[in-house]
Amino acid sequence: MLWNAPSVERLVEAFRRLPGIGKRSAERLALHVLSAPAEEAEAFSRAVVEARSRVSQCSVCLNLTEENPCAICSDARRDQRIICIVEHPSGAMAIERGGMYRGVYHVLHGVLNPLEGIGPEELRIDRLLKRLEGGAVDEVILATNATSEGETTSLYLSRQIAKFGIAVTRIAHGVPMGGGLEYADEATLAHAMQGRTRL
Amino acid sequence: MLWNAPSVERLVEAFRRLPGIGKRSAERLALHVLSAPAEEAEAFSRAVVEARSRVSQCSVCLNLTEENPCAICSDARRDQRIICIVEHPSGAMAIERGGMYRGVYHVLHGVLNPLEGIGPEELRIDRLLKRLEGGAVDEVILATNATSEGETTSLYLSRQIAKFGIAVTRIAHGVPMGGGLEYADEATLAHAMQGRTRL
Repeated sequence: MLWNAPSVERLVEAFRRLPGIGKRSAERLALHVLSAPAEEAEAFSRAVVEARSRVSQCSVCLNLTEENPCAICSDARRDQRIICIVEHPSGAMAIERGGMYRGVYHVLHGVLNPLEGIGPEELRIDRLLKRLEGGAVDEVILATNATSEGETTSLYLSRQIAKFGIAVTRIAHGVPMGGGLEYADEATLAHAMQGRTRL
Repeated sequence: MLWNAPSVERLVEAFRRLPGIGKRSAERLALHVLSAPAEEAEAFSRAVVEARSRVSQCSVCLNLTEENPCAICSDARRDQRIICIVEHPSGAMAIERGGMYRGVYHVLHGVLNPLEGIGPEELRIDRLLKRLEGGAVDEVILATNATSEGETTSLYLSRQIAKFGIAVTRIAHGVPMGGGLEYADEATLAHAMQGRTRL
């Protein structure tokens, strides 16, 4: 069978390592690549290596970028006095899509998770704290995810950052805009209820 | 922004070309590849090219394989007198997972679709008909998908094959209508194979 061929096994495994790709999906993607013209497979392969070799972490905010510092860090119109902390580059991407935020970012590339051996050193929290020295920052917005690890990380960071006398805020969590109450899960609804604001 | 970088644009586009991958998914997969260690991206890239270069079509049944003829065509325990015709390698894979079928396959790599210019020549129907010459085949099972193109293709093939005086059967419609073979569970597929009807 094709799946037993070592090169095909490696390809399926490579696809399975991608986020959100299960066994069946990996097999489907592998079959597509194997059925496609050889040039298409080569172009795909090249795109992966080229992008990965050109993209690295911004030396200021650790976001992924082709230039260093990244386009956001080097944009004079962005407010360098406000730093929004996100877990992953995808978080910064999502906020940028919103188009409202004018400050800059700091990407942790993870969350604190003692069980998996991920502590402040693995997240290079010292890099973040170094950015906060010297009084050039007014506010840090914590935008880690609303998971237990994300909350723990935010709590830890808020304590570290408070030492600098900088304002620390947490993004609001609640019912998505435009979405009916019936589509929000219970945890979100409970949180939205607790976090209600006076009009 | 990272998405504007040409190498990243090409990577997202490469992912979007895969089946079932939309813009958001492609961006998510690209971000994963870009965040991963460079060696992982290189291993992924290599897996694609290596598998694609080693896999080609079986000269007998046109299924994808690393050896030629493929493991199924060269298996003496398989009944070479029964040929099951599928649209894509994924269909043969799905039937093999069922584990009930003991015959061999023929892969069309598509369906008749006059609007898209896909006729008998594009599907290399002559290759199939050549296999049927000489009286070594007792039965052809049509297992194209239950779509209008799949039905049209089956009808066309049944007429062509009838000329050889070979029994032509169609797998039972236990496979959900409008759905591809690869989405059917194993029990359904095994049942559909057993309940095939003479055309």
